[in-house]
Amino acid sequence: MDKRPIGVFDSGLGGLTVLKALIHELPHENYIYLGDTARLPYGSKSPQTIRAYSEQNLNFLAGQNVKSIVVACNSASTQIHETEFLEAPLLTVIEPGAQKALSLCENLRIGVLGTRATVESGAYAMALQKLDSKVEVFSVACPLFVPLAEEGWDQDPVTNLIAYRYLQGLLQSQVDTVILGCTHYPLLKDSIAKVLGNSIHLVDSGEAVAQQLKLKIKSNNAPSGQLKIYLTDSSAHFERMARRIMPSHLKMSFEIVNLN
Amino acid sequence: MDKRPIGVFDSGLGGLTVLKALIHELPHENYIYLGDTARLPYGSKSPQTIRAYSEQNLNFLAGQNVKSIVVACNSASTQIHETEFLEAPLLTVIEPGAQKALSLCENLRIGVLGTRATVESGAYAMALQKLDSKVEVFSVACPLFVPLAEEGWDQDPVTNLIAYRYLQGLLQSQVDTVILGCTHYPLLKDSIAKVLGNSIHLVDSGEAVAQQLKLKIKSNNAPSGQLKIYLTDSSAHFERMARRIMPSHLKMSFEIVNLN
Repeated sequence: MDKRPIGVFDSGLGGLTVLKALIHELPHENYIYLGDTARLPYGSKSPQTIRAYSEQNLNFLAGQNVKSIVVACNSASTQIHETEFLEAPLLTVIEPGAQKALSLCENLRIGVLGTRATVESGAYAMALQKLDSKVEVFSVACPLFVPLAEEGWDQDPVTNLIAYRYLQGLLQSQVDTVILGCTHYPLLKDSIAKVLGNSIHLVDSGEAVAQQLKLKIKSNNAPSGQLKIYLTDSSAHFERMARRIMPSHLKMSFEIVNLN
Repeated sequence: MDKRPIGVFDSGLGGLTVLKALIHELPHENYIYLGDTARLPYGSKSPQTIRAYSEQNLNFLAGQNVKSIVVACNSASTQIHETEFLEAPLLTVIEPGAQKALSLCENLRIGVLGTRATVESGAYAMALQKLDSKVEVFSVACPLFVPLAEEGWDQDPVTNLIAYRYLQGLLQSQVDTVILGCTHYPLLKDSIAKVLGNSIHLVDSGEAVAQQLKLKIKSNNAPSGQLKIYLTDSSAHFERMARRIMPSHLKMSFEIVNLN
């Protein structure tokens, strides 16, 4: 039994969808979540800057005596190629998301939705093609999805319209599986499914990484988990959303940290 | 004649609309523009974080031997109350925008559109009420306007729809003047005017601050201006937009700086 917490980081709020999937798979663990709210979003920034911020986040989490680190943010994940950081096993969402997509895909045509940084990195396409060189990948950057999710406009006609604008091209490419390559996108799953149709598999990378982490770590059997949330900028909006998204039995505490 | 440059800072791209207004009023000056692209946007962050970033920006510009500093970013302007920084006269967009709005307004009812940070600060409302205690102010946060402008979706039915969603409440309040309290919003002026109607005065704070600066500084008579742009993160998108937005005769150069 290893009681040390699992560390998770994201640029902000979106990683809570990944954390929720982790807690679903591994409910008895203790978690530390770092949201870099002072510098979010990452998806519009350069690879160098995303890498620099990610290293600061990894150093912070490694300093908290975690037994494993999960990079929830897809844009950050594209710039992290290590599988270990200061002796803690390190998982990103890219590899698990790619594996799950391939396991569901039947026609070797896969779509990837992500931020501009994620799409431009080509990280999902490379991971998919490494697993199966015959797969064809169709990537679409959807920059407005993050602010729409932050605004809480899921289940909204405006979001449906914007989803249609971004995704109509994908409809022509006959993909049967689409990776939701940004932590915010599961929050807009309904609008995305409305455009793509119900027969297309939507892959949530958060669920995929949670299933992989379960196989990797020595799990905890304590009766209930604790969640400590560190933010780099105070955010009443974040706390409100966290209490709405996360299971109500969870003991949550918040603290502000300065990583510079 | 004072040949030292004028310093301008913004969280990113939007401040170019202010810089353009400055160059229009003061075409013979040299300019230094700092875009904090590594940490944008400011409008969703806390007052403390916005203030901390702004101080770093001001220190950087003051170190460049500028004769004056203009804070283009409205969210940053709400956290700056000095009129001088290390001996350089310091102008924000709040006071000039408020003055211009009052000079145009006939019914003492003024609308303010801005980021969440700008609206929550109440800075425009306070500035307006200090100038005329009888004025009524109606503020609306429009968080999606920045990403829509960044996406280049001006002149777009989706933007019209979102503008209608944000602004329909203002239509009831019978304002006759509306302050575009974010540097990005002039880029969406057409959609905003479509919803509010042509009889409402739209105030661009960038134009207002340019007119005030002209009265304050000893101007330069050199035949043509130079523009040096510093960014905290590399951005091909920024360079493309800058070349599109700024006058073509301008000599522009770009450099990356690290403010941490």
